[in-house]
Parts: sequence; C-alpha cells; structure tokens
Amino acid sequence: MAEQPAGGVDALDHPPYRAAVVDLLGVLAYGELTAFERLAEDAALAPTLNDKAQLAAMAAAEFHHFERLRDRLVQLGADPSAAMTPFRGPLDEFHAHTAPADWLEGLVKAYVGDGIAADFYREVSAFLDADTRALVVEVLADTGHAGFAVERVRAAITGDARVGGRLALWGRRLMGEALSQAHRVAADRDALSALIVGAIDQPSMDLAEIGRVFARLTENHTKRMAALGLSA
Amino acid sequence: MAEQPAGGVDALDHPPYRAAVVDLLGVLAYGELTAFERLAEDAALAPTLNDKAQLAAMAAAEFHHFERLRDRLVQLGADPSAAMTPFRGPLDEFHAHTAPADWLEGLVKAYVGDGIAADFYREVSAFLDADTRALVVEVLADTGHAGFAVERVRAAITGDARVGGRLALWGRRLMGEALSQAHRVAADRDALSALIVGAIDQPSMDLAEIGRVFARLTENHTKRMAALGLSA
Repeated sequence: MAEQPAGGVDALDHPPYRAAVVDLLGVLAYGELTAFERLAEDAALAPTLNDKAQLAAMAAAEFHHFERLRDRLVQLGADPSAAMTPFRGPLDEFHAHTAPADWLEGLVKAYVGDGIAADFYREVSAFLDADTRALVVEVLADTGHAGFAVERVRAAITGDARVGGRLALWGRRLMGEALSQAHRVAADRDALSALIVGAIDQPSMDLAEIGRVFARLTENHTKRMAALGLSA
Repeated sequence: MAEQPAGGVDALDHPPYRAAVVDLLGVLAYGELTAFERLAEDAALAPTLNDKAQLAAMAAAEFHHFERLRDRLVQLGADPSAAMTPFRGPLDEFHAHTAPADWLEGLVKAYVGDGIAADFYREVSAFLDADTRALVVEVLADTGHAGFAVERVRAAITGDARVGGRLALWGRRLMGEALSQAHRVAADRDALSALIVGAIDQPSMDLAEIGRVFARLTENHTKRMAALGLSA
C-alpha cells in the first residue's frame, strides 16, 4: 500500500484508514446516542421545570450530533448500526458502572465524563483527514452543559461542604472507569488503535506522544474538577 | 367586558381568553416535555440500535415542539414554568398510572395516548385565535411515531396472538386514565374549562357539542386501536 498524505483527499480510499474512521465515527455516534439517553434521564431527575427544559435541550443537541455522525457513516457506505455495535459493550458497561445516585452525580458525570471523551477524540482528530476532523470537532462542541453543571455543582457545594467530598470521590471513579473501558476498546479494535499508534501508513502518535496525550488528559481532568470546586 | 370576535386580533387582550390560552399552552408544553422524557425512556428499551435512533429522533422532535410553545408563552408575557406547573400533577399521575411494562406497551401508549390528546386539543383549537390555532396544529403534527408504532405492534401480534389480548386491555386502561385526568383538569382549571364550555365571551361548545366531541374522541380511539390490530 502506497504511503498516504496526512489528511489527504485519498486517505479514505486506504482500507485500514477507512476502517479506523468508521470505528471512530461508530464509537462517537454510539457515545452521542447514550449521551442523549443519559441527559434525558437527568432531565427526569431535575428539581425544577427550568432545569428539566435545559437538560432536555442538551439531550436534543446530542441527538442532532448523532444524526450528523450517522449521516456521515452512510455517506462513507458504512452501516451505522454495524459501526456502533462493537462499542455498545464498553460504553454500556461504563454507564452501568457509573450510574449516578442523584441529580448532582449526574451533572458531574456528564461534565467530567464528556470532558475526558472530548479531549481524547480531539487528540485523535489530529491524525484525521480534513472532512472527518471538521465533523469530529463539530460534534464535540459543548452543548451548554459545562456552564450549567459548573454553576449547579458549585452552588450545591457552597450549601453543604460534605457534598464536595462525595463528588470528588465520584470524579475519581469516573476517570478510573473511563480509562478502564478505553483500554478495552484499544485491545479490541485493531483499526482504531492502529490509527493512534501508527500501524497504518498515516501520521500517528509514537509512544512518547501517547504518554504526553495521557498527561494532557489527566491535566484537563484536574482543571475540570477544579472548575466544579472539587479536588481531583 | 365587550364581546370579542372569534379568533379576532383583540382576543388575547381579553383577560379570561388570555388566561385560557396560557393554560392551554402550559398543558401542551408540559405534555411535550413529558412526551420527550417518555420517548427517551422508550429509546432506552428499544431492541435494536435502529429502533433506538428512531425513538430518539421522535423525542428530539417533541422537545422542539416544547420550545415553540415555551417561546410563545414568553411572547405572551407568561412565565413558562408557572404556566406548566398546574398540569404537572395530572400529567405525572397519568404517567405513573400507565407506566409501560415493556417496549410494546410503551409503543401503544405513545400512539394511543398521544392520539387521544391530539384529538382533544384539535377540538379545542376550533375556538382559538388564528395564531394560537396555527401553533397548536403545528405542535400536534405526528413526529413519525404513528407509522412506527403500528408497524412494530402489528408485527408483534402476528408473531404471538396472546400479545394482542394483553395490549387490547392496556389500550382500554389508557383511555380510562386519560378521561379521568382530563376530568381532573376540567374541574381545576376554570379558565380552560370556560373556554370550552362557553363561560367567556367567545364562541364555544354547548353541551350537545361536548357530547359529540366525546363521541368523536371515542370513535378515533377505536380506529387507532384497529390500526394496531387490537379490539378497543
């Protein structure tokens, strides 16, 4: 197979690269669909009608991101259900292991969990062709959740200091579960891992770079926890 | 108070009429918000990723209907949360009394329950000013749920005849609960009831007409049950 230019127009004709992109869009699409469900569940727990409407708006926005990813998969000739299926196990397990006990845990999970995922996908997107990268950046745009979660969580901590301790532990558990499921995906999905670690003829990360990516993910996680008023 | 023309431009300046419209938009808005939540819950129960995505799309469509109603309430100078609040009790109780036991009951509930509600609001809309009527008709538009529910339920009945008997009973229960909560709303919300039975200076229904409305609601319910392949 001839070497492909980074993000070149021909990149998607290269079968291992195309397989990696289908994997990436598949995991993102299933992630958006579960984000929709999770935010809708949070809306059901919302203390006021205004909070409920705001969470429902975010859920609808995540659904529209899902639609963009699904349409792109169809455009690439891939079956969206087939592309999402390999990621149901890891993502459903992540959600089963991190079911929020209340409204505040749900807000922290959405903010911290989506933040970790978005950071990771943005790192990967550096190695994508221009069209795919633009779509990934578009669907990772904050749907207004960040500001909402920060405001509500900070207000709750100010009202009761013990809440901060409990939510700090919760944030650590979320990071641990996210890393554990990411390992599982990396072990199962050769095409996607190959894109990241450079087993296909595309620019990719070397081991030192992977180390730096994890350092950045951890650093950003600490910043998000601090924004919530929590120790990481 | 001077007599107001039916659907005239001044109708909303007439305080009892305006109060009735705020009630109507409030109950519709809360109905759309709960429809969003319910469809999102059904999406979580969906047997396939394709079914899940279709239900999530309908949920997002209901949310956008909610946004249109909320924006109209704001435009009328009403507080959307305050307008919705009186209807939380009856609607939450309807949903608590008719929690679907499975995916098929959820589909029948969405199709039959939304059908009854839409029929009722369409009857009421005959007595509204043109702008409000146009909005009501717009938000009651089918979001693709009807065809989806009919197809899935008919397929399930064909596969197992006992399912039909169980779902027919379920449909009757839904109609009974809907009527019982409608009675409660009529007893509690004077402005809205006045709009329907003509206690304000607007064209409205006389008792014979109310009887005919109920006959039409029942007839349409029977038709929807038949479309599902169920006896009413």
